[in-house]
Amino acid sequence: MDLLKIVRDAESSEFSPRNLPYCVFSPPQEPSARVGVRLGNFLLDMGVLESAGLFKQAALGPKSVFNQPSLNAFIACGKTAWHEVRRALLALLSGARRPPGGLSFIYPRQSVLLRLPVEIGDYTDFYASKHHASNVGEVLRGKDQRLLNNWLRLPVAYHGRASSIVVSGAGIRRPWGQTRPRDPNGPPEFSPSARLDFELEVGYLIGPGNSLGDSISIKAAEDHIFGLVLLNDWSARDIQSWEYQPLGPFLGKNFATTISPWVVPLEALQPYRVAGPKQDPAPLPYLQSEQDGAFDIQLEAWLTPPNGQPHRLCYTNFSYLYWSMAQQIAHHTSNGCNLRPGDLLASGTVSGPEKSERGCLLELTWGGDEPIDLGDGNQRVWLQDGDELTITGWCEREGARIGFGSNSGRIIPAHPSPQH
Amino acid sequence: MDLLKIVRDAESSEFSPRNLPYCVFSPPQEPSARVGVRLGNFLLDMGVLESAGLFKQAALGPKSVFNQPSLNAFIACGKTAWHEVRRALLALLSGARRPPGGLSFIYPRQSVLLRLPVEIGDYTDFYASKHHASNVGEVLRGKDQRLLNNWLRLPVAYHGRASSIVVSGAGIRRPWGQTRPRDPNGPPEFSPSARLDFELEVGYLIGPGNSLGDSISIKAAEDHIFGLVLLNDWSARDIQSWEYQPLGPFLGKNFATTISPWVVPLEALQPYRVAGPKQDPAPLPYLQSEQDGAFDIQLEAWLTPPNGQPHRLCYTNFSYLYWSMAQQIAHHTSNGCNLRPGDLLASGTVSGPEKSERGCLLELTWGGDEPIDLGDGNQRVWLQDGDELTITGWCEREGARIGFGSNSGRIIPAHPSPQH
Repeated sequence: MDLLKIVRDAESSEFSPRNLPYCVFSPPQEPSARVGVRLGNFLLDMGVLESAGLFKQAALGPKSVFNQPSLNAFIACGKTAWHEVRRALLALLSGARRPPGGLSFIYPRQSVLLRLPVEIGDYTDFYASKHHASNVGEVLRGKDQRLLNNWLRLPVAYHGRASSIVVSGAGIRRPWGQTRPRDPNGPPEFSPSARLDFELEVGYLIGPGNSLGDSISIKAAEDHIFGLVLLNDWSARDIQSWEYQPLGPFLGKNFATTISPWVVPLEALQPYRVAGPKQDPAPLPYLQSEQDGAFDIQLEAWLTPPNGQPHRLCYTNFSYLYWSMAQQIAHHTSNGCNLRPGDLLASGTVSGPEKSERGCLLELTWGGDEPIDLGDGNQRVWLQDGDELTITGWCEREGARIGFGSNSGRIIPAHPSPQH
Repeated sequence: MDLLKIVRDAESSEFSPRNLPYCVFSPPQEPSARVGVRLGNFLLDMGVLESAGLFKQAALGPKSVFNQPSLNAFIACGKTAWHEVRRALLALLSGARRPPGGLSFIYPRQSVLLRLPVEIGDYTDFYASKHHASNVGEVLRGKDQRLLNNWLRLPVAYHGRASSIVVSGAGIRRPWGQTRPRDPNGPPEFSPSARLDFELEVGYLIGPGNSLGDSISIKAAEDHIFGLVLLNDWSARDIQSWEYQPLGPFLGKNFATTISPWVVPLEALQPYRVAGPKQDPAPLPYLQSEQDGAFDIQLEAWLTPPNGQPHRLCYTNFSYLYWSMAQQIAHHTSNGCNLRPGDLLASGTVSGPEKSERGCLLELTWGGDEPIDLGDGNQRVWLQDGDELTITGWCEREGARIGFGSNSGRIIPAHPSPQH
């Protein structure tokens, strides 16, 4: 395959050389997995390019970081190494460096199996969209208590479950669970969730991170962001609302979280940096930054019912986020909590001011009261078996796009009995 | 060293052949770590014993499970393998099997460095003591709302932080953090926590676990408990109370959690199985078990002020726990959430009905209102810099003890400035 022709074809795609997102893949008929980079409709095998010496300048160390079944080793190398590898790749793709002779390092995208790109140690989910928090607050507690006292003072977050994070394409089994008793003095229900929801979020992978007891200043925070993914924080609202007081969401969330396979480097997103919403009251000094901390990433969620057509549920933007990623990292580590390479942080549901910009069904149907018309005679309040939910995201400027690809999951019916 | 003499000396100790807790250690002057078993004042090197063929019957597989820097590989082998290894060890210690000739596999306890015994994927902390939940509820919400509606129906839990789990002996840095504004309309405080607390808990290590989408029945639940440790869930109450609504504890907890180095096998605890508290109302069927699910483990917390004498803060028992470990596992996986080998689950603070049986300062000082007299002129409401907090635990029947050893941590002063 002619690399320079592939580059030319890729120029007009979401995966042009401006993007170069990382993934972990298994080549055809091979069980082993390693790191790849997406280019147009193809994948570059980073393990082969590393072995051929392309990344010597990056000083990645004596052991291979790309012939690995996860991105963790590369993420741990830090920002300078990330940049040097990107520079070497761009030199290769521009023709300034010659491709390694006689080596096969290009795969058609469709021929490979995509895997979870990272071994996630800890997963933290923030609640950083003011529109989302306000809407959820109003649905649950009424108009007077839309935002709790602490919300404008700190980026609220909770620890999620790392074990149940899956890559786009994995089926999502409808969970069983306890829900609020119909008779307040009677026993709770125990049944498959009847209020299954998605949450449109953006996740980001941490590296190199900090030592326990130390903190990361807001100024240094972005040095610890390797790249971004699309994230769906599947939620069973009936389980969640019964269990979550006083210690937060647990079984209503931890049955599955889906991330997209392509990790878009933060470096590729720099042209799309914008100012976030004005923060009033001013945050405490450890959360103040002079740099714009938001990124203009357009986001959509689509629902495809079984045998139906895709219907766009919402259209929103990552730049609506009230608390920036840098603020989230500075807050997370302000008490000395250590972040490790491969940790996943997520934004929480990204909602905007308009009704069409709400990032989950709880908001879109206002707690279940306002069904959504899918346009082909179908309506939805919550997700039904066989529904496929897809999140997409991209940045666009002067006609040139870089894309996140898509994050999809289809609902599988619950097990027929509670013991399975 | 004469193994049979060591066994005789160990008989009267907490670490007799009835116990045989696992650990991970580094031998003198060696950086590498591997699995050991405690016997009296000595450690047996399980890697050497495995290489010598002692555990052939256990069919541990072609790769070593003990020449590893964590217990994860052994934990993943499952209950039958755990039992066979224990049987082979007991045969060795009884003299029924000959020790491997010419091999050094015994180290004095004091000569080795103890490490975190397990690589923890996910850490879940329950809230399973009714006395604790009632006391905390009364302190925070008043007598009328001691227990929330859901508490008697399901074992409440939240996800904790895996990265900041440390082994006994590690210093605990006092965290900085946001706390509630003194003036409700003014900015929050940001300072070193002034309300640092411990929580006396018991943790347990999971293996082999379940696949995502499946569940573990309560009947099978104990097959997935490898062993137990003592756990201190350090808590900054001022940070916690400001941040925890609505998504639960975050920075108030995730700066450190300490576990003891000795993992006591569940098999060693079988003689101490007892009935737990009567559960009223009856739990839902998936949480019902015919087997007694509690264990009679006596627990103490001691505080040693700088240059002072140890003072016992409380004396409680693991059998007070309302929700059993088996119920916790059945609930955790009831929605299909997957548990993996090496996951850590913990009980939450273990408190009893008496004032002297309260497992944290929040309860012992009733929210800070009732200082504790340490007996030498010192008083405490919360932990001060230099204080050492030690948790101990043991089972005793007819004079014979098996012990958990101790779990200690000393408070290190906060960094002088917030950026560190």
